[in-house]
Amino acid sequence: MRLVLGSASPRRKDLLKELGFDFRVLTAEADESFDPQQSPEEIVLAICRKKMDAIWPQIEPDERLICADTIVYLDGKVLGKPQHKAAAIQMLQQLSGKTHEVYTGVLIKDEQGEHQLVDCTTVRFQDLRLEDILHYIEHHNALDKAGAYGIQDWIGQIGVIEIRGSYTNVMGLPTQRLYPFLKNLMA
Amino acid sequence: MRLVLGSASPRRKDLLKELGFDFRVLTAEADESFDPQQSPEEIVLAICRKKMDAIWPQIEPDERLICADTIVYLDGKVLGKPQHKAAAIQMLQQLSGKTHEVYTGVLIKDEQGEHQLVDCTTVRFQDLRLEDILHYIEHHNALDKAGAYGIQDWIGQIGVIEIRGSYTNVMGLPTQRLYPFLKNLMA
Repeated sequence: MRLVLGSASPRRKDLLKELGFDFRVLTAEADESFDPQQSPEEIVLAICRKKMDAIWPQIEPDERLICADTIVYLDGKVLGKPQHKAAAIQMLQQLSGKTHEVYTGVLIKDEQGEHQLVDCTTVRFQDLRLEDILHYIEHHNALDKAGAYGIQDWIGQIGVIEIRGSYTNVMGLPTQRLYPFLKNLMA
Repeated sequence: MRLVLGSASPRRKDLLKELGFDFRVLTAEADESFDPQQSPEEIVLAICRKKMDAIWPQIEPDERLICADTIVYLDGKVLGKPQHKAAAIQMLQQLSGKTHEVYTGVLIKDEQGEHQLVDCTTVRFQDLRLEDILHYIEHHNALDKAGAYGIQDWIGQIGVIEIRGSYTNVMGLPTQRLYPFLKNLMA
């Protein structure tokens, strides 16, 4: 079985590569809307499903597809990717001085069947100065990231005073859970 | 005041650079022995002190020196840098399936005075397979790292199922505490 990563995220591509797996990357436009009544676990898996449905027609019979989705969850609300810089600044101001959760869902599908997993990491930002938020938004690409931040970026290094759980899960793939699972599946 | 990093660690150099500070690097041979009766906080600061004493004679009057030390603390014992591959394998086997603490101490000194800070992060490894430990020791440089692992390395991605605290503190610098402090000091 050959592995296919169905994600445009360079972080996911790097992480899966660093785990030691060979794969090709496929992407497709997918509607990432969701039902805000659902739990965060249900939401990430529902968005994974939409991504998977969009890519699946391109998959060969000997291939296994992995799709993932990551959301930032603050006070019972999902923060998605900001539409523009002002929205990004607002999101980081909301996250400043607070604790939020990051959920990543993973769906794995081949002709034999499907598997899913969800991991959650708690992330706490210390108080961010507005000048640091503005510096980050100017010098990094916050618009392609849920919650307007990358934990591996400068803003994570100066701001993320505590996490509880997996760090790579916040980057976009729960590698510690995925690795033994995928290793077993690909054996 | 010009900043000087007194550390040979490439991780510390990268982190301090990514924070946005300009500095030069100085290193010196320092005795890193410690008194095992002391608390982990005392131990990291005592080793920082030895590093600082070794480098301080090279410092110019308009310079401010930063030294840091990181230790891995498991069941009340310090795990230092392994002397050889067999010791590295043994350390990772000890850490497997358990929770340990990582302490990083930072000393900052200039002609006006001194400052210190210590940060602690809790790290939990899931059960590591011996073949994964051997793979890591073969393909990465575990010998220059306290506890025989780098959290940013492959072994962290497959093995560190949970951390509590700062991620960069485990890499070697508590950037989230250091940044506002140093920013203020250098202003």
